[in-house]
Amino acid sequence: MESNVSTITVSPDEMRECFTAILRKEGFSAERAVQCATIFTENSIDGVYTHGVNRFPRFMKYVRDGFVKKEAVPTLKHAFGGMEQWDGNMGPGPSNAVHASASAMRLAEKYGIGCVALSNTNHWMRAGNYAWTAAKKGFVFIAWTNTIANMPAWGAIDARVGNNPLVMALPYKDEAIVLDMAMSQYSLGHMEQVAMRNEVLPVNAGFDKEGKLTNDPSAILATRRLLPAGYWKGTGLALLLDILSAVLSGGLSTYDITKGKTKVEYGLSQIYIAIDISKFPNHSAIGAAVENIINDYHQSVPSDASQKITYPGERVLQTRNRNLANGIPVQKKVWDIIKGIEDGTNDLSAIPYT
Amino acid sequence: MESNVSTITVSPDEMRECFTAILRKEGFSAERAVQCATIFTENSIDGVYTHGVNRFPRFMKYVRDGFVKKEAVPTLKHAFGGMEQWDGNMGPGPSNAVHASASAMRLAEKYGIGCVALSNTNHWMRAGNYAWTAAKKGFVFIAWTNTIANMPAWGAIDARVGNNPLVMALPYKDEAIVLDMAMSQYSLGHMEQVAMRNEVLPVNAGFDKEGKLTNDPSAILATRRLLPAGYWKGTGLALLLDILSAVLSGGLSTYDITKGKTKVEYGLSQIYIAIDISKFPNHSAIGAAVENIINDYHQSVPSDASQKITYPGERVLQTRNRNLANGIPVQKKVWDIIKGIEDGTNDLSAIPYT
Repeated sequence: MESNVSTITVSPDEMRECFTAILRKEGFSAERAVQCATIFTENSIDGVYTHGVNRFPRFMKYVRDGFVKKEAVPTLKHAFGGMEQWDGNMGPGPSNAVHASASAMRLAEKYGIGCVALSNTNHWMRAGNYAWTAAKKGFVFIAWTNTIANMPAWGAIDARVGNNPLVMALPYKDEAIVLDMAMSQYSLGHMEQVAMRNEVLPVNAGFDKEGKLTNDPSAILATRRLLPAGYWKGTGLALLLDILSAVLSGGLSTYDITKGKTKVEYGLSQIYIAIDISKFPNHSAIGAAVENIINDYHQSVPSDASQKITYPGERVLQTRNRNLANGIPVQKKVWDIIKGIEDGTNDLSAIPYT
Repeated sequence: MESNVSTITVSPDEMRECFTAILRKEGFSAERAVQCATIFTENSIDGVYTHGVNRFPRFMKYVRDGFVKKEAVPTLKHAFGGMEQWDGNMGPGPSNAVHASASAMRLAEKYGIGCVALSNTNHWMRAGNYAWTAAKKGFVFIAWTNTIANMPAWGAIDARVGNNPLVMALPYKDEAIVLDMAMSQYSLGHMEQVAMRNEVLPVNAGFDKEGKLTNDPSAILATRRLLPAGYWKGTGLALLLDILSAVLSGGLSTYDITKGKTKVEYGLSQIYIAIDISKFPNHSAIGAAVENIINDYHQSVPSDASQKITYPGERVLQTRNRNLANGIPVQKKVWDIIKGIEDGTNDLSAIPYT
């Protein structure tokens, strides 16, 4: 099938500068504008376009409409040993996530393990960003967020569960192993991209309007009946991640985020756990232990001889290196929207909330 | 299809006393015999027969053959703040798990969050047991174990990943919400039970000898090509859980456990995390917050009107109450083996290692 997407290439510097300029014009401080612009650009460099360049217009929409408070900073609600509760005060998700990650690492340095529960924050875009950062600093990092209800429980028709992404990471060589997974088999963003290319997904990912499992992304986008990864397992994990993020932070649950609203997702609850492995007596042996595991994993015999079995984060690193060398592929229509926001000809009114 | 399994009913007291007698005769101390007998019985009461009564003969085999050291106790290797490393010294998995859970709760009481990494332990039988206990004491509890390699990575033919069960739990009313999930879509034990009833699984759970996905448990048991839950998602999560349990405990990885051995699984690595929510300022509001989430979740519209959407642990509680009232259903041939072990006519030589 022929792709109907025209793609251009944008250099990382050009993208970051464009995002920074837009954010500055919107009233972001210089420091915060660079911080947010850098995270959106890094996500694009890493190939997570759905939560990088493609998502930037929607982020701006949320800022403009006041769902994201551009200069809000987190405030400490409660501290007890290695555990802290912070209120994100509806600030930008990426800024709050950087703050919460740093706080969890600070606690881990002091207590071995640190946990930050963050309420009233916004979409962090991509958990992997904070996980790569923490892992490259030498920490084990586990974090998750809740979301608006976007997935039916296994066996149900109506969406009452979030797809609540979970990230787990640790240092590996000079880089990291980073698992960044939502609890739906595929994200809406990925299905939109595949639908745009008129392709189907390699496995079933949701239900069509007849209630049948399908791998056709257009049919699933029409019903919004996403399939939980592993059926009841993804459902259960999503439910527990939501409950824990809400009750440990004293913040909103998926139910609270969803009720009475129409598709606008804000006021999320998140958990950040860091473990400082430099404090471990076996610290110097960890690198070799992980390498043994990965070496064995890499020897997996693929069922399709042309496919290599890769560990979580391995292909991200390949994409990162390619995009740093060659520039970031961007859909021309997406970049046109962003340039329109930059030059003021696009007033964001046509940008959808979802 | 007709079931070819004949079932009897055994009272919880009778089962616990029988297990205790066998363990005492095997040389377990009175205290440890009661502890292990109680856990195997509780798992059976909760309906997890595969890791309760059905598994008891294999546990005895591992004890008799010296893989499980009946009187070993864990020793502290390293402590730093809320993080401790313990060596399980190859003791019984259930005894080590009770010790590690209690240690994580002790750390959580002091530091808000506590983490125990346990090396050189053995199969804990059922994570849910320790999770119910911790949650009913008021803790959030997260734990996982690695296993011998028993699952191919998604896209691979040969098993180089464990199915590494993960448990997450928290208090709910006077009981608990407990998610207890392995990273394979189904466990080998469950597939054996379904195969014995000549039934098929409701979803695909592995590959047949032609390399096709199938829901026929006999075909999957023949190839041992289990399907990771959520394909690459279950694979990635299993890999990260293995790496973290091995490196944080300084213990063996799935690769280490598997290499050079033939199907005998011992020397596992596990992680136990507890969070003491009684230390939270929003503690008194947590019960109502969880109830709101569960009430909404329960309102999910089922695609099959005869099915109710249940939260993790909800059906366990129903089974527990039924088995406490009516006795525990046990396959007659399993109970015959156990009675044979008790009266000494079964010398365990015919009990398989897997």
